[in-house]
Amino acid sequence: MGEFDLIRRHFAQVARRLQPDQPVEMGIGDDAAVFNVPAGHQLVCCVDTLVAGRHFPLDTPAHAIGWKSVAVNLSDLAAMGARPHSILLALSLPSADDDWLCQFSQGLFECCQRYGVQLIGGDTTASPTLTITVTALGWIPSDQAILRQAAQVGDLICVTGEMGNAAYALQHPGSALQATLDYPHPQVSLGQQLRDYASSMIDISDGLGQDLGHILSASNVGAVIDLAKIPTHPLLQALPNPGKWHYQLNGGDDYQLCFTLSPDKFNTFMQRYAPPVSVIGEIVDGQDLILLDRDQSVPFNIQGWQHF
Amino acid sequence: MGEFDLIRRHFAQVARRLQPDQPVEMGIGDDAAVFNVPAGHQLVCCVDTLVAGRHFPLDTPAHAIGWKSVAVNLSDLAAMGARPHSILLALSLPSADDDWLCQFSQGLFECCQRYGVQLIGGDTTASPTLTITVTALGWIPSDQAILRQAAQVGDLICVTGEMGNAAYALQHPGSALQATLDYPHPQVSLGQQLRDYASSMIDISDGLGQDLGHILSASNVGAVIDLAKIPTHPLLQALPNPGKWHYQLNGGDDYQLCFTLSPDKFNTFMQRYAPPVSVIGEIVDGQDLILLDRDQSVPFNIQGWQHF
Repeated sequence: MGEFDLIRRHFAQVARRLQPDQPVEMGIGDDAAVFNVPAGHQLVCCVDTLVAGRHFPLDTPAHAIGWKSVAVNLSDLAAMGARPHSILLALSLPSADDDWLCQFSQGLFECCQRYGVQLIGGDTTASPTLTITVTALGWIPSDQAILRQAAQVGDLICVTGEMGNAAYALQHPGSALQATLDYPHPQVSLGQQLRDYASSMIDISDGLGQDLGHILSASNVGAVIDLAKIPTHPLLQALPNPGKWHYQLNGGDDYQLCFTLSPDKFNTFMQRYAPPVSVIGEIVDGQDLILLDRDQSVPFNIQGWQHF
Repeated sequence: MGEFDLIRRHFAQVARRLQPDQPVEMGIGDDAAVFNVPAGHQLVCCVDTLVAGRHFPLDTPAHAIGWKSVAVNLSDLAAMGARPHSILLALSLPSADDDWLCQFSQGLFECCQRYGVQLIGGDTTASPTLTITVTALGWIPSDQAILRQAAQVGDLICVTGEMGNAAYALQHPGSALQATLDYPHPQVSLGQQLRDYASSMIDISDGLGQDLGHILSASNVGAVIDLAKIPTHPLLQALPNPGKWHYQLNGGDDYQLCFTLSPDKFNTFMQRYAPPVSVIGEIVDGQDLILLDRDQSVPFNIQGWQHF
């Protein structure tokens, strides 16, 4: 099958049928896509690649791969406080397997619809290694992007959701946490709500320890985390401590948000939105990440996801 | 080596040192990049993947791969009439080879500088297959994008540059045309100059025959091409005809532009810019692509690049 038939059948026809709430001037079907960024807004964009056998197990259902390839990118936009608009899909496939593509595209479009995003272009190529690269595009009111570099001493450190579930699921196939690994739900709404509140924000994709570390180094501050306050699923709560902490601090694929804000802003934010977020610590002077277990500092080797 | 060291050494430091003429709010170093699209303009974006051994020979120098991965995307923006602004790089590597990365990033940045483009973000992953996916972003004055769908009967069909050189070079390694394969020069300026003139445009990446075919089907018109008018390098001119036509009509990787415009607009365009373009035929009624050799219609199997 040619690339054009493949695209037409599984992607272009569906993309056109799904009614976008934010119309594009030109989507799939020309050399490039064209759309309007609203006045007073800045474009926000990111790219993430999933490689089969590395970023997901080889036996992951195609539907989940399709969902996840979109979700991980929307999580990056959410961490800026941006509203997602559209994606570009670069798909490298060992073969043009019709069943696989049908499942994959359904998962991809379900995630797109869930978050109001449309597929506006892409490239399909043959490759020995299944590789999915999604570019996500969105926008934000000018100068309101939430960066990593403005955490202040005294700010609270918060996270959304539970930590370590996906890493646990990766080690325990078929567990009750499997869906957290296969179908991450990026915090798209919460990220936008935090625009007027958070001093810094990052998405937790490489492990809470490493990702919080990016905020600390970008902001030139330190942090104290109370390990007991990290939100934890009962399956992980049952584990002995060093193992539990390993999942929660070094495990990747959570796609939750970690953010900082002043105690005042925290209170007004909670009153306004009452979102499911947890305070796990505080920004302090210095450069260190201090982990407390019952008020005692715990030595722990922060590793996070190693890309090589 | 960790991903972050790798990015810092070969990409982030260089990207920051190269002074952009179009500043970004946030480039490499956060969850996503942020920039302004000028008022009265639309965003234009595209993505293209190069897979080692498929889109370039395995022994291609890393410097050329870096250049080409940017150039092929800028060619797609050029075909819309857009001004390029920036790129995102998704790089999947078998290993973090320092020498290779040094050469690759030099080639990539040389192409970026040549066309006034900056690297604003990306993702680096390990993969058994060297795969480079570049997303290119640019903009165009609102509603001036040159699409494929508005070619009119009576329009002239024009191309830039020579056809078939890259396909010839692929079959004749080390020939005088090697650079056309390794270092394509996208028609970034000419594409923008054509905004007020061209009725349709496409970049020739999959072969003139197939790519012109996309204009014909999108515009619901036919075309007559005079094969003798296709601009031809002396190395190809020396070939017997069916072989020469195969390179010129079915060979990929030219990264020239094919566009249509009325004879009147052609004259005023040539008077204003005097660019190196060639008229090779005319848009006619119908749906067929008719190829003439000394006024006789020639049967020829248009194949173009097969992605699978």
